[in-house]
Amino acid sequence: MRDDNCIFCKIANGDIPSDTIYEDEEFRVILDLSPASKGHALILPKTHAANLFELDDEICAKVLILAKKIGKAMQTALCCDGINIVQNNGEAAGQTVMHFHVHIIPRYNGEKQIVAWEPKQSIPEEQREIVEKIKTALI
Amino acid sequence: MRDDNCIFCKIANGDIPSDTIYEDEEFRVILDLSPASKGHALILPKTHAANLFELDDEICAKVLILAKKIGKAMQTALCCDGINIVQNNGEAAGQTVMHFHVHIIPRYNGEKQIVAWEPKQSIPEEQREIVEKIKTALI
Repeated sequence: MRDDNCIFCKIANGDIPSDTIYEDEEFRVILDLSPASKGHALILPKTHAANLFELDDEICAKVLILAKKIGKAMQTALCCDGINIVQNNGEAAGQTVMHFHVHIIPRYNGEKQIVAWEPKQSIPEEQREIVEKIKTALI
Repeated sequence: MRDDNCIFCKIANGDIPSDTIYEDEEFRVILDLSPASKGHALILPKTHAANLFELDDEICAKVLILAKKIGKAMQTALCCDGINIVQNNGEAAGQTVMHFHVHIIPRYNGEKQIVAWEPKQSIPEEQREIVEKIKTALI
């Protein structure tokens, strides 16, 4: 289903023009208007899902295969040195448009990393507690 | 196939112990030893693929469905406010272990973003050129 108030629904379905690099029945892949790097693209499903947790498994199964296909074409077309695949869920994760989308970001040697964190020291006891909590939630 | 020199092959197949939160025939999901945040997990396929571009489509189709399942359990177990899904390909993208893996990183309000870039101003003519190059490579 589409959400008529969602800008990515409009772009994905062609109501708003975009720099489209790929389209099929279920997805549109566009260049980001404010790219992190040359060739930065977004995979947009045509049906609305706010985030990964609302996405149908049937669509979900196709996303990474499509990312692989687009990423390979980027390697050929742009001679990039690496590729980040990023998918953010929720404002706390930096998601700004609440329509599921996957960033495919070509990386070039010498450019600053866009994914970075200060690794924390894990505490074995705390880790075991987290394991048990997640395992319980998975049942 | 496994690569006997690959540490993630060893962890995924249980030769090296890990804080495992999920396991099936094709995947192991573990807690990261140096987490970006509480509950930071990694999806590891048991067969070796250096990156997304070497991963079989059959495995590829299951990765994001598994990330969704694990992410949902994290929401329940850890009460996180968001989740980043990150998959890096190549040193230029920050990949440090050359065995395909997906980071599932729970995010908590008030913590620093781990995915961030300075958006560039795109130039329409340049974007159209990139579109054509990628489309050609997709044929």
